[in-house]
Amino acid sequence: MADKAAPDSSRRSERSRRAIFDASLALVGEVGYDKLTIEGIASRAGVGKQTIYRWWPSKAAVLLDAFTDGVDDYAAGLPDTGDLAADLKFVLRATADEFNDPAFQAPYRALAVAGANDEGLSRTFVARLLEPGISVYVDRLRAAQEAGEVAADVDVRIAAEMVLSPFSQRWLMRTGELTYDYVDTLVDQVLRGLRPRD
Amino acid sequence: MADKAAPDSSRRSERSRRAIFDASLALVGEVGYDKLTIEGIASRAGVGKQTIYRWWPSKAAVLLDAFTDGVDDYAAGLPDTGDLAADLKFVLRATADEFNDPAFQAPYRALAVAGANDEGLSRTFVARLLEPGISVYVDRLRAAQEAGEVAADVDVRIAAEMVLSPFSQRWLMRTGELTYDYVDTLVDQVLRGLRPRD
Repeated sequence: MADKAAPDSSRRSERSRRAIFDASLALVGEVGYDKLTIEGIASRAGVGKQTIYRWWPSKAAVLLDAFTDGVDDYAAGLPDTGDLAADLKFVLRATADEFNDPAFQAPYRALAVAGANDEGLSRTFVARLLEPGISVYVDRLRAAQEAGEVAADVDVRIAAEMVLSPFSQRWLMRTGELTYDYVDTLVDQVLRGLRPRD
Repeated sequence: MADKAAPDSSRRSERSRRAIFDASLALVGEVGYDKLTIEGIASRAGVGKQTIYRWWPSKAAVLLDAFTDGVDDYAAGLPDTGDLAADLKFVLRATADEFNDPAFQAPYRALAVAGANDEGLSRTFVARLLEPGISVYVDRLRAAQEAGEVAADVDVRIAAEMVLSPFSQRWLMRTGELTYDYVDTLVDQVLRGLRPRD
């Protein structure tokens, strides 16, 4: 349209971008990944299909950007107060709150499921969301290892998965509640095996 | 048809049942759960649609029966040689072989994915396949606890998930290979936290 001529076109672009993200997250939760379409997103967001295609090549690309935009920035890493157990419990309790929030649940579940089913999407999902999420735990565990709080021969990648995978599988498969009590027990039980032997 | 009159009708039923199971496992791997239909299964199995509807109410029911029929029977539980680490490694290495087999991969992944997406199917999937699989680990860990090999204050359910969830999430999300080396490190790292303190 008159995009180029408008003085506030970048603000309007940002507004469209936000509307497209909101629409795609809402829709994927309602209809699932398979039935999500660019047309549907455009219609819900009140923009033209071409606006979406100008910025993203596929629905997967839109959704991944929408999701990454919405989740906490991993760049800061985990807190490091010098007390590994306290730091892990603090972050994992906050993550439990997030996972228990229906607004987060539906799109993340749809994305996890679609990713498990579609190898290309899976690689992007893993690279953009899952691996950065695991990495901050690996980094925090490595810092604890350097501080002597975790034994030198521990595989910190596997240790991170020992905390994160039970948590996320319990949520994904709905085999149990993500309570603070569960989080604390999980962290304590993982950490007691990682400490240096006296 | 003439089922009732035929002297070999039960053998023929068994043959149809087997063909229906094989067809549904092959098809779900090829087309995914969403596109799997009773018609498609019937056509691939060389039976009439009505034969399937006579025995099962839905494609989910067929698939779950097909899958349960194909996996090892959990009734026997895990081996108990008195060496918990050796027993867990033995079983988990065999499971890695199974998960690395393409014939097993496709239908199990389709089922896991469909289960994560569909709450009704999920409950059945969890009750019929996932929970029995976790339970045999819980039982084995409890036996080790009674034998004094695992500390009395360990939550054996969470301990079982500390072994099984990293293993299955690594497979489902394709974040790493399921090698014997991985399995052994995982088991050792979980178990060293579960032992009674001296």
